Amino acid sequence: MNPNSFQPPRRTLMGPGPSDISDRVLSALSRPTIGHLDPLFIGMMDEVKALLQYAFQTKNEMTLAISAPGSAGMEACFVNLLQPGDKVIVCRNGVFGSRMVENVQRCGGIAVTVDDPWGRAITPEKLEEALLKHPDSKFVAFVHAETSTGAKSDAKTLCAIAKAHNCLTIVDAVTSLGGIELKVDEWGIDAIYSGSQKCLSCVPGLSPVSFSPAAVEHIKQRTHKVQSWFLDQSLVMDYWAGEGKRSYHHTAPVNALYGLHEALVLLHNEGLEKAWARHQHMHQQLHEGLALLDIDFIVPKEERLPQLNAVHIPNNVNDAEVRNRLLAEYNLEIGAGLGELAGKAWRIGLMGYGARRENITLLLGALREIL
Amino acid sequence: MNPNSFQPPRRTLMGPGPSDISDRVLSALSRPTIGHLDPLFIGMMDEVKALLQYAFQTKNEMTLAISAPGSAGMEACFVNLLQPGDKVIVCRNGVFGSRMVENVQRCGGIAVTVDDPWGRAITPEKLEEALLKHPDSKFVAFVHAETSTGAKSDAKTLCAIAKAHNCLTIVDAVTSLGGIELKVDEWGIDAIYSGSQKCLSCVPGLSPVSFSPAAVEHIKQRTHKVQSWFLDQSLVMDYWAGEGKRSYHHTAPVNALYGLHEALVLLHNEGLEKAWARHQHMHQQLHEGLALLDIDFIVPKEERLPQLNAVHIPNNVNDAEVRNRLLAEYNLEIGAGLGELAGKAWRIGLMGYGARRENITLLLGALREIL
Repeated sequence: MNPNSFQPPRRTLMGPGPSDISDRVLSALSRPTIGHLDPLFIGMMDEVKALLQYAFQTKNEMTLAISAPGSAGMEACFVNLLQPGDKVIVCRNGVFGSRMVENVQRCGGIAVTVDDPWGRAITPEKLEEALLKHPDSKFVAFVHAETSTGAKSDAKTLCAIAKAHNCLTIVDAVTSLGGIELKVDEWGIDAIYSGSQKCLSCVPGLSPVSFSPAAVEHIKQRTHKVQSWFLDQSLVMDYWAGEGKRSYHHTAPVNALYGLHEALVLLHNEGLEKAWARHQHMHQQLHEGLALLDIDFIVPKEERLPQLNAVHIPNNVNDAEVRNRLLAEYNLEIGAGLGELAGKAWRIGLMGYGARRENITLLLGALREIL
Repeated sequence: MNPNSFQPPRRTLMGPGPSDISDRVLSALSRPTIGHLDPLFIGMMDEVKALLQYAFQTKNEMTLAISAPGSAGMEACFVNLLQPGDKVIVCRNGVFGSRMVENVQRCGGIAVTVDDPWGRAITPEKLEEALLKHPDSKFVAFVHAETSTGAKSDAKTLCAIAKAHNCLTIVDAVTSLGGIELKVDEWGIDAIYSGSQKCLSCVPGLSPVSFSPAAVEHIKQRTHKVQSWFLDQSLVMDYWAGEGKRSYHHTAPVNALYGLHEALVLLHNEGLEKAWARHQHMHQQLHEGLALLDIDFIVPKEERLPQLNAVHIPNNVNDAEVRNRLLAEYNLEIGAGLGELAGKAWRIGLMGYGARRENITLLLGALREIL
């Protein structure tokens, strides 16, 4: 073995994440590491918290970044809120809804699934029906932006229905945060998790989460210890929230948090509404370009995510060959289909820093040349 | 709110971690992000695996880095191996032994603790006694290098005793990997976890782990699903081990892994034995310098870790004031005492890239000026 430094090429990342990352964020990652209990670092963490509150549109005190990827953020929400025997309605319209079911079961909870077809939004009436049939449900869980299909669900309406049935809501915002409208407090979301590597355009590895006061109260009333020590938010909060003295829980991923801080500063400086509008505008441009190539979307127009465009692979086209050529000849990554859509769809991300005109033009040009 | 980029100062990190990081590793972090399923990235992951096998001195196929800090690595070992009702002997001589007990209990296991005083190695005879008293034990768990006290235990002997009683061994090597002799295969360690931010001198956020064939077999025979989806190694291995087709589990923390790769290349280029010897040599230099200042070690000589030096705070000296002055006036971080040793000890790290002459001279000079 004679290992050398790894020198990655510069790719244009238009898959389902990680997304294109600005040089400002990449450069922040390599700033000198300081201690995770250093007063200067703690000051930065306070800013990260405030910036996440802005991004999530929430005043929730319990707003922070889990020191692990989005799937750990998902798990953090479930293990902290659920206790054995708790019934959870899980709306499922793609891979990540199924993963929620896995999480419920591994916490000893009972998952009642409400299914919608892949590529479609969740049907609010089905949730209502399920809640009437299962009045002992304690939680409603759903994915706001299904990364596996590109479908957007109406989080505001789903949360209102859940509230009317006295359920706490657990929302997957991995792909939605920063890309489309999302208002945690206004919509009454109780627990929400996201990922750093989608519309925030930071490197993968961190999961922003937020818990409402009602969720925090629920956590405080637990009779069973949270099954994960690492994800036990009552312990983590002593580090994040502790004004004055912060107590040690685990060593925070210092440099990754530099990157998240920088990415959130960029989002704040642009402004949330402008970022949402930019994603929508770029999606429109991509849509027009793909139409000229006769490439159709999987998801009906009004249910489409601007940041994650799942499209039918044209007939007589070799899926893997096209993706491989885009990567090898154009340094351009798009995503394969996942789950039911494997081999049937491409997933084209326009996320965060990646949602810009030159990326779209490059992809359309490359597809014209290859197809 | 008018947030700006965060510009940390350059500190000298001589606490219990994160440790000083070389510019080569910092620079690797900011290389362009590529996809986690990109063939070039997968090639790099294969190298990370081989380099970790070297660092751990193992041929274990199941050797990888958990996408989260060392405490998640600890949890990964316990949740994958334990099933409800399993009895585990936990040798406890500091904070991290207690954390192992927490992990056992949260998995529904039964922890039998074997206690030694803080600041002392684990007593092999006590383990032997406990195993005779509890012949139904399935696992023996202990900390090789107690970060909270600076005590080194005899992992080889402890593992031999566990094997003689047909127990699998779970070893915390968070602070030992790369700093002192550690031979996973030769010593018969079945599950081991470490952290990126100690003697590997990478940024915090990743946890190298390795599982022996016997541990893997044990995982395959499970009848209960692993309670954590994120840490379920049977799923994670489909991503790390899959020759040819890698299946998606979670998005790997791409840039953090660039950093770990670079740190492991540096370790490989230096050579493990030379790295161990360097830590020992630097420890000796620190020891001589502290003796001139009448500063004594907590741990008896033969049980001391070279990389984590816990020392008594001199009489009539204000703990926090000295640490604050070191930080504010010298940009130099040392660690406070933890748990039983809070307010009584300083923890001086000489880890990885931080184990070098200029760091020791700076600390000794600063202490001379302050005390």
